[in-house]
Amino acid sequence: MLYVIGLGPGGEALMSQEALAAIEDCDIVVGYSTYMRLIKDLVKDKEHFATGMRQEIDRCQKAIDVAIETGKNVGVISSGDAGVYGMAGLILELLGDRADLEVKVIPGITASLGAAAIMGAPLMNDFCHISLSDLMTPMPIIEKRLLAAAEGDFVICLYNPRSKGRPNHLSKALSIISQYKSGDTIVGIGKDIGRKKEKYILTTIKDLDETLVDMTTIVIIGNKETYVKNNRMITPRGYSL
Amino acid sequence: MLYVIGLGPGGEALMSQEALAAIEDCDIVVGYSTYMRLIKDLVKDKEHFATGMRQEIDRCQKAIDVAIETGKNVGVISSGDAGVYGMAGLILELLGDRADLEVKVIPGITASLGAAAIMGAPLMNDFCHISLSDLMTPMPIIEKRLLAAAEGDFVICLYNPRSKGRPNHLSKALSIISQYKSGDTIVGIGKDIGRKKEKYILTTIKDLDETLVDMTTIVIIGNKETYVKNNRMITPRGYSL
Repeated sequence: MLYVIGLGPGGEALMSQEALAAIEDCDIVVGYSTYMRLIKDLVKDKEHFATGMRQEIDRCQKAIDVAIETGKNVGVISSGDAGVYGMAGLILELLGDRADLEVKVIPGITASLGAAAIMGAPLMNDFCHISLSDLMTPMPIIEKRLLAAAEGDFVICLYNPRSKGRPNHLSKALSIISQYKSGDTIVGIGKDIGRKKEKYILTTIKDLDETLVDMTTIVIIGNKETYVKNNRMITPRGYSL
Repeated sequence: MLYVIGLGPGGEALMSQEALAAIEDCDIVVGYSTYMRLIKDLVKDKEHFATGMRQEIDRCQKAIDVAIETGKNVGVISSGDAGVYGMAGLILELLGDRADLEVKVIPGITASLGAAAIMGAPLMNDFCHISLSDLMTPMPIIEKRLLAAAEGDFVICLYNPRSKGRPNHLSKALSIISQYKSGDTIVGIGKDIGRKKEKYILTTIKDLDETLVDMTTIVIIGNKETYVKNNRMITPRGYSL
C-alpha cells in the first residue's frame, strides 16, 4: 500500500483523523524535509527519509519502488492537500502500469482554506486557485487564467505568489487582474498558515505591499462584493439579510 | 466564543484535530439536522439543536444570540469547509457590529478535495469552484463564470450540480462549458464522499449520464490534459517525466 497523505497547513492541529491513521499504518514515511519536521513526533519510531526541494520525482519514484519491492506500507506526505499542487498526481503519473500497487490518497485542508478561515470568510462564493509558479505551467497559460478568473469575478487564491526567483509575478498578476477588478478590491494576505506565527493582512489591489508576500504566503483576491468588517474579509453568499 | 466548524465531508474520519477540539470545547452545538447526525456521538452529552434546510439565517442568528446572552461556547457546524458555501460567511455577516463576540472559523476538507482524493488527482493544476444553485447567485453570473472557467481551461468543480428543483442546470452548464472544452474532456462524478457508500464514476462531457448526479454529488470537469489511467482521473502538474 502506498499512501499519499495531505497534512493540512502547518502542524498536526489541522490534520484529519484519517491522515493520522494512515501515518500510523505506515512502515516508511517519505517527504520534503520541511514537512517531515512538522510530523517528526509521529514518525520517530518509523523508518523515514526526507529529501530536498525540487527532488519530487526522485522522492516519489523511490516511494513507489520501495512499496513494490518490500510490500511494506509507504507514506508520501504533502503539505496542505496532496492533490492540490502536491504529490498525488506525480505518484499516479509515475505509477504508470503498476496497477498492482494500491495507492490511497488522503485529502487535506489546502492552504487557501486555512488562510480563508483566519481571514474570515472570503471563499463564500465561486472561487479559483491559480499558481503563479511557471516552473511547470507556461506563463501565457497562467496569464490567460488570471484574465479569465478576473473577467468571471471569481474570488482568486494565488499559490506560489512570489519568490526570490519570481519577484515580479505577483505585480504582473495584479496588473492583469486589474483589467476587470477595481483597485479597491479587497485582498487578504495569509502568512505561515497553521503555524504558531500565522498572521494575515487585509488590503486592496491598489495598496498591496508586495514585499509582504513570499513563498510562505497565500494571496486571496475578493470579488466585487467582498468587504471588510471587524477586520474580517467577507464575501457575501447572497442571503437576503 | 462562537466556533464555526467545518466537519469535512462525511463523518469523523476527515475531521481535523482542531475541529474535534473545538466541538469538545463547546457547551452548545448547532447545525443542520443531517450534519448533526454525523457527529451525534460527539455531542450526546452537550446541549445541541438541529434545524432543517433553508433555515440557515435563523440558525446562525440564534447561535450568535445564545453565545452573546449566555457567554457560553457555541459551535455552528457545517459540512465540508464552513467557509466554502457554508455558514462562516453568514455568521460574520449577521454579527454586524457585535465585535465583542469572538468568532473562530475552523477550516475543513471541502467536498471537492474529498472527491478528488478518491478519483485520483484531478486538481493538480489550476481549478475553480462554481455552485450551480441559483437560489443566491443569479443565473447570468453563474453562466458567465462557467464560460470564463472553460475559456481559461480550469479544472472545474461543480457544487450543487443538480436537484429536483434544478433538473436542467447541469446540462445547461455542460453546454456552456462545451464552447471551450471538448466533448472528450474527462469528468469525474463523486457521490456521498466520506460516507460508507461513497463512490465515483469517470466519464466524459459528451457521455455524462446526468441522472447519476444529484445534490449529494460533486462533479469535477478536467482540463485539456486530464486523462484516465488505472481508473484514476489525473491532471498532470507539468513535470517532465
